[in-house]
Amino acid sequence: MRARDLAEDYPLVRLTDPALNAARLIADQHRPAVVVVDDDGKPVTVLPGSQVLRFSVPGYVQDDPSLARVYDERGGAEVCVANLAKRTVKEVLPAKDKRYELPVVSGNATVLECAATMARLHTPLVVVVDDDTIHGVVTASHLLAAILDAPESPA
Amino acid sequence: MRARDLAEDYPLVRLTDPALNAARLIADQHRPAVVVVDDDGKPVTVLPGSQVLRFSVPGYVQDDPSLARVYDERGGAEVCVANLAKRTVKEVLPAKDKRYELPVVSGNATVLECAATMARLHTPLVVVVDDDTIHGVVTASHLLAAILDAPESPA
Repeated sequence: MRARDLAEDYPLVRLTDPALNAARLIADQHRPAVVVVDDDGKPVTVLPGSQVLRFSVPGYVQDDPSLARVYDERGGAEVCVANLAKRTVKEVLPAKDKRYELPVVSGNATVLECAATMARLHTPLVVVVDDDTIHGVVTASHLLAAILDAPESPA
Repeated sequence: MRARDLAEDYPLVRLTDPALNAARLIADQHRPAVVVVDDDGKPVTVLPGSQVLRFSVPGYVQDDPSLARVYDERGGAEVCVANLAKRTVKEVLPAKDKRYELPVVSGNATVLECAATMARLHTPLVVVVDDDTIHGVVTASHLLAAILDAPESPA
C-alpha cells in the first residue's frame, strides 16, 4: 500500500476563487480544510476551516468573543458571509511566513513515510503529488485505518 | 441557533484509555481528532490524529521520513501499532505547555462566538460544555454550513 493507493479525492480551490467557495466546499464535504492550488493547478498550501472563519469574524469579536452577542442570530451569519464575499482565497490565507508548509508526499511514499510527514508538520492531511499530478490527499484518519487494519506478518 | 443546537456527538477518550482506542476512533469515525476527558468526564484537551501518528512513528523516521523505507509495508504498520499499544492516551498528549488550549464554548454561545473561538485557537472544533455536561462538539465545517445556510434578514 503506497500513498497513491490511499489517496482520496479532496476539495481543491484556486488562489483566485472567491473565499466563499472554500467555505462552501468545507461545509458541504464535511472537511477540516481545502487544498489550495495556483493557476497551473500546482498545490500551494492547505487552508483550514478555522482560517476561513478567522476572516469571516469581525476583528473586535475575535479579540473578545463575548462581543459576538451584539449581533442577533441572523445578523451574525450575515456579517460573516459579507466578510467572506469580498475576499478571494488568496486574501484569506495566512501571511506567507505563517502559512502551513505544504504537506506533500510522492505517490510512492509508504504508510510510515506519510505518517512521519503528517506528524512532523502537525497536519490532518498530506497531499499526494507526482510531478504536476495531484493524486489526492491522505488524511490522518485514513492513514490510521490503514495502519490498524494492515495484515499481520506471518509468524 | 446556539452552540447546543449545533453540537454533534464526537468521539471521547479518557486519559487512562489505551492510545490504540483513540487511533481506532479517529480511523473508524473519519475524524481529525478526539476529545480527551478526565476520570470525572470533564474535557481536558483535543488530541489530533497527527499527534497520535507522532507517537506511532519511530523517532529517527520522524527526523528523516526517507528512513521509513527500511521497513516493508507490513513491518511499517506493525511498528506503528506496537508503539501505540504500549502507551495510554495521557502518554501521547503533547507536553502540558504545548498542549492545545481546550476550545470550549457554553451551550448558549452564538454562531459568531463559536466562530471567534475557533478562529482564535486555530482549532477545527470547539467543545460545547455547560457545567459538567458535554453537549458535543461543533466543527468548523458544520459552523460554516450554519453560517452559509442562515436565512436572510427580511428586507
